[in-house]
Amino acid sequence: MRPQNLSYYVEVYAAVERIVLRSGCGAATVRAVAAEGGLSASTVRYYYRNQSHLLACAFAAVDDHFSHELGRHPFAPGRLGRGDKPRVEDAVDVLAVHLPTDGAGLERLRLLHAYKAWGRHDWDMAVTVGGFDRRLLDLSHRVLVGLGLPTPQAQRQARILRAVVTGLAEEVVTLAGPPEGEPAMRLPDRFTDRGVRAALTQHLRAVLTEHPQVVADPVDPSYDDQRPEDLPVDRAG
Amino acid sequence: MRPQNLSYYVEVYAAVERIVLRSGCGAATVRAVAAEGGLSASTVRYYYRNQSHLLACAFAAVDDHFSHELGRHPFAPGRLGRGDKPRVEDAVDVLAVHLPTDGAGLERLRLLHAYKAWGRHDWDMAVTVGGFDRRLLDLSHRVLVGLGLPTPQAQRQARILRAVVTGLAEEVVTLAGPPEGEPAMRLPDRFTDRGVRAALTQHLRAVLTEHPQVVADPVDPSYDDQRPEDLPVDRAG
Repeated sequence: MRPQNLSYYVEVYAAVERIVLRSGCGAATVRAVAAEGGLSASTVRYYYRNQSHLLACAFAAVDDHFSHELGRHPFAPGRLGRGDKPRVEDAVDVLAVHLPTDGAGLERLRLLHAYKAWGRHDWDMAVTVGGFDRRLLDLSHRVLVGLGLPTPQAQRQARILRAVVTGLAEEVVTLAGPPEGEPAMRLPDRFTDRGVRAALTQHLRAVLTEHPQVVADPVDPSYDDQRPEDLPVDRAG
Repeated sequence: MRPQNLSYYVEVYAAVERIVLRSGCGAATVRAVAAEGGLSASTVRYYYRNQSHLLACAFAAVDDHFSHELGRHPFAPGRLGRGDKPRVEDAVDVLAVHLPTDGAGLERLRLLHAYKAWGRHDWDMAVTVGGFDRRLLDLSHRVLVGLGLPTPQAQRQARILRAVVTGLAEEVVTLAGPPEGEPAMRLPDRFTDRGVRAALTQHLRAVLTEHPQVVADPVDPSYDDQRPEDLPVDRAG
């Protein structure tokens, strides 16, 4: 078995993703993925010991995309407290990275949610998803501290903010469409990008209105060195 | 094929639920459900034409549980505006029905989320889940109007409140545990019932603080007759 080049992994993950989007994680067995990608099942099995391992690695590829997008924003680790004080609009920008409403971004979000559902009964995936969730909590905390909330309030509000992001994502991720010939179901309340941003802005405004005394506080530039619960991020695979 | 009594359906759904909690919806085929419940596969197939139909009906059973719980609360349809003005605590009570953190309630929540994930690529389930989501939006709206928010704000805030409930539920629904022999993963931020209630209370307080002028407004008792978008709730099966 000679070592494969990068494009091999790209092909494997692309095959996994097509199957997951079409039929869910349960359908993405090693055999089905090999068939979908026109690859040898025994080669796929050489690199991925089973379906759990394959799916956890495919999740990591999606996860990397989110991390990469976040790296360019003013709330990214190491950038907070340097430069101008971030505004609510900046916070909405960075949170909206987790809420793409169309195109390839929406497909990634649908994959993310399929993998999360799989993590409810698969340990490899649970470890990987746990890492993603912790980073999203950390980002929420970072955003709130950046906007001037003192640490105790920021800690409590970070969990609510993460819930808002996760809950909006649940709604953005579309339900299945009707089979051919059946009328489309009316979905009066699907979120657009503007709707997502409006909801995030409203939520942050409400949180900041409740703590008016802190909005003018300076950002603590040592925040980046202070996270008490910066658990190592486990990655399966 | 003689008609079955109620206990037959109870057995079928119990078998579906055991499989879904253990291995996800993909594993709950008609054949697997029959084997799990010690039932004849052809009889199960007589009542449920395929896996999609079976799962959508099983969802409806879980859904009924949530509706039944809600019927006893002061925000239930037909009860709003009669009796005392509801307080934030009442609102938290009724929303917490969607967020059970242990026991049989937590299992139902885990089932709900598994069915939602399945609805992303299955049309029968998508129709049923769509109905559930609309009722949760309606409840959120009802709660906010009950607390005194005027209709335009209540409509916008209802979508955020639903996102908070859904996002908290995502966190309450536990990830898979480790296989035997592996150390348990630290989950520092799992929500308890108290935590869920504190988060809901904080969120509602922030929303109400932002609109201080409206908190004292009386509830409009005609609200129950006013819902403009009371779409029929589709039920598969």
